[in-house]
Amino acid sequence: MASECKSSEKGPDFSKNGGLLPAIAQDSKTHQILMMAYMNEEAYRETCETGTAVYYSRSREKLWRKGEESGHVQKVKKIYVDCDRDTILLSVEQQGVACHEGYRSCFYREVTADGLRVVAERVVDPADVYK
Amino acid sequence: MASECKSSEKGPDFSKNGGLLPAIAQDSKTHQILMMAYMNEEAYRETCETGTAVYYSRSREKLWRKGEESGHVQKVKKIYVDCDRDTILLSVEQQGVACHEGYRSCFYREVTADGLRVVAERVVDPADVYK
Repeated sequence: MASECKSSEKGPDFSKNGGLLPAIAQDSKTHQILMMAYMNEEAYRETCETGTAVYYSRSREKLWRKGEESGHVQKVKKIYVDCDRDTILLSVEQQGVACHEGYRSCFYREVTADGLRVVAERVVDPADVYK
Repeated sequence: MASECKSSEKGPDFSKNGGLLPAIAQDSKTHQILMMAYMNEEAYRETCETGTAVYYSRSREKLWRKGEESGHVQKVKKIYVDCDRDTILLSVEQQGVACHEGYRSCFYREVTADGLRVVAERVVDPADVYK
């Protein structure tokens, strides 16, 4: 992968959605959905060039190099776009955990009649991730 | 599932993102990601009540009862929320195909150095779906 998508003109269409497209990260081996975040064109280009997932943080209004502090990076194996070319799917190798709460996936809670139920094991103590 | 999530107060947080949350549909058996769309609170509630996925169409500005015309509905088995409670993950049984282009998943194209490459079989002729 790496710089492959750089040269492609027919990737995600950043003229849509105000230039900010949802990007879903899925584990390339287990197919578990790890997280969803957003990419602008710059984040996408850097992802292509480095082979490591870079998102755009809407709250911090800047590039978010996933795992830069924690080391929990995502090696991007493949990139897909949906039929409208306004949603990105990344097939990744997740180092450590995707979620800042210490779970492998951000989707660690199921909605049930009794409220939210945690359905995954916490793998990492969040305090150990962000010192 | 069905009305289970109706009674939950701690589901998705529709005070975020202008009341419109991304919802990812994943095949409950194969774990293939089928599509991503949006839900407002009304769509979410109807999904809970009926057990069938209902989205909100941003282009048509109204509820989108997935499969209403085509019959290609999504039976919702489980619902998850992410750590911020602003993204929804639906584990579904897809009847027919998710994509209006006739592919099982909307993510049927990979981004490669040579442009977009179709990596899935077209299962249904789109003309047969929307008569």
